[in-house]
Amino acid sequence: MSNPTLVREADAGLACCAPLAGEPLSAEQAAGVVPMLKAIADPARLRLLSLVLSHPGGEACVCDLLPSFDLSQPTISHHLKVLHEAGLLDREKRGTWVYYIARPAAMTALGSLFTPAAGPATASAGGGC
Amino acid sequence: MSNPTLVREADAGLACCAPLAGEPLSAEQAAGVVPMLKAIADPARLRLLSLVLSHPGGEACVCDLLPSFDLSQPTISHHLKVLHEAGLLDREKRGTWVYYIARPAAMTALGSLFTPAAGPATASAGGGC
Repeated sequence: MSNPTLVREADAGLACCAPLAGEPLSAEQAAGVVPMLKAIADPARLRLLSLVLSHPGGEACVCDLLPSFDLSQPTISHHLKVLHEAGLLDREKRGTWVYYIARPAAMTALGSLFTPAAGPATASAGGGC
Repeated sequence: MSNPTLVREADAGLACCAPLAGEPLSAEQAAGVVPMLKAIADPARLRLLSLVLSHPGGEACVCDLLPSFDLSQPTISHHLKVLHEAGLLDREKRGTWVYYIARPAAMTALGSLFTPAAGPATASAGGGC
């Protein structure tokens, strides 16, 4: 919230690149990704994240997202706030609207959970991990 | 629960191969994966799934998993049941113990959510999708 700069780089702090099938996830690693999983374990929020990711430019404002839901703007804004607070979306205020963009590091961290352990390709998902 | 056969093939019914970044996830697709996300949005269950996946042979019984947790056997069994009911683990009774194995189709469905949309490599995750 305090940093308006969009974070497009992988965050070193995220528990990324730890496939579930690799070696047993530690309690610390689990604690790092569970808040993100909780945030998307909701149909509206999972669809919102998908809409942001698939929107031209990979970013969207509430105004872009509202037509896809039978939900009020405050409700959509609340769900976006939950995704933001879980570290899945960054946001940037431009004039009247707040634009949301998915954090690549979060996507990498979540995706790498389900990467098969075999094969060194796992490490190629992000250079920063 | 009723079928003791381990399901190692991709399930056609799962909402797999639908990257969040591809096109907006439909409400039906979201409804298909949210129960799995809810199940693993818990540190103990996420670690249990990781332990099963990373255990030799990709399968484990409660007896294998118990030493890694400061939890009772009934609690571990409860968490495994939740993972089973969410479609993430299959189980098979052998003598005294029930063995759990991750369902590849579920892993593929979850992993494909976070696959970057660009590039045809997405389709190679599973031939059945």
